[in-house]
Formats: sequence, C-alpha cells, structure tokens
Amino acid sequence: MLKIKQLLVDAYGCDADLDDQDFLIEALEAAAAEVGAKIVRRVTQRFSPVGVSAILILAETHMSIHTWPEHSYAAVDVFICGEGKDPHKAWEVLVDRLRPESYDMNELVRTIGEKRSKDS
Amino acid sequence: MLKIKQLLVDAYGCDADLDDQDFLIEALEAAAAEVGAKIVRRVTQRFSPVGVSAILILAETHMSIHTWPEHSYAAVDVFICGEGKDPHKAWEVLVDRLRPESYDMNELVRTIGEKRSKDS
Repeated sequence: MLKIKQLLVDAYGCDADLDDQDFLIEALEAAAAEVGAKIVRRVTQRFSPVGVSAILILAETHMSIHTWPEHSYAAVDVFICGEGKDPHKAWEVLVDRLRPESYDMNELVRTIGEKRSKDS
Repeated sequence: MLKIKQLLVDAYGCDADLDDQDFLIEALEAAAAEVGAKIVRRVTQRFSPVGVSAILILAETHMSIHTWPEHSYAAVDVFICGEGKDPHKAWEVLVDRLRPESYDMNELVRTIGEKRSKDS
C-alpha cells in the first residue's frame, strides 16, 4: 500500500494566457520536472470559442489543467503516485505560471494498492 | 459560478481485467453516455509490465482510470463540469464494470468560474 496526496485546486483571477495550450502543457512539464515525475504522454485539447484542457500522463498517474479563459479560471489536478514526490512542489511551479489572484486547494489522501481485508 | 461535485474513488479487489485498455476506455465511454457528457478525446496508455491509464477528455472536463492490475486496484476520477450532470451516475456504471470488493470514495465540491472578490 502507498498513501499519496492528491491536490485539486481552483485558481481564480489568473494573470496568464489560459487559452494558450503550449503555455499550459509547458507549465505542467515544468511542474513534473520539479518533482521528478516521468512524462509518458502529453495531451492538449482546445475548445471553441475558448478554453483548453492540458493533461500529462505520468508514469505516476496524471496532472491536468482545464481552463475557462473567459473567467480567468483554471482547474488544476495534481495526482502523482510516486513515493517521496511532493505534489505541493508541482503546485509551486504552477502557481508561478498561472499567477492566480486567489485559489482554493483541496488536498486528499489516496491509498493505492491492495487493501488488506481488515481495512475493508 | 458553477458548483460541481468531483468524485475520486479508490477501488480495491476489482474482479475485472484491469490490464485491458479497450475494456477500460469503453467503461468510461459508457459512464459518460449515462450522464450525457460529450466525449472530445479518448486517451489510453499501457505500462510495462502491466497497468493502464485511460482518460476521456470531455466537453465537461475529464474522467480517468489508472490501474494497478497486480493489486486489483483502480484509481477513478470523475470530474464533470456540467450543470445537472450527476457524477454518481457515472460511478454506478463504473462500479458495475470494475466490480470492486470495496472502495473508498472522496467527494468534493469545486467552484468553477469567477470568484467574486467578497469570497476571496
């Protein structure tokens, strides 16, 4: 069993171009590099008229950003299943890039692996 | 502003082939159909020796399954930003497909959009 922290952040009033898919995927790449996560796949999707989904599939699960540029809002998920890999370090990189006025962070602990029957 | 529920589920003892990427992406597709979410992109990634990441990018954000077949474990995220779209209905489809012995569900509320300054 491995207990890991997942961060889910609502970022408001972002002073960054949230409609720029290259910028967003590069921000995720920089965050992954900061925590030493291995990038397996980069996926970006633009929406009409505006909005981007950027997702990195990692050897250690995923990180994603979904944006609503019209509201200067970004939904960030940092889900890194690697022992000793601190998701807060990834968020520190992302907050520098997204530059929100404010954000709400939810942190939860997930237990990865086999659950022993006595835990059920 | 839109308040939506996100589900993050740790599923243990799954009686399904968690190494089958087609099965997993089809399970997500069925879950998306159940809640009326629009699928924009399907992404699957196999890991060596075992393990799959399956992600649907939706017009309403994303759903993902990451599996550790060696532990019969799956990490499921249901993040659907659509008014009136109930993520529990998506989970009902997924639990039928994954058939876990037990699961731990985290439910959180995210506030999408502009934050009024008085909320900051």
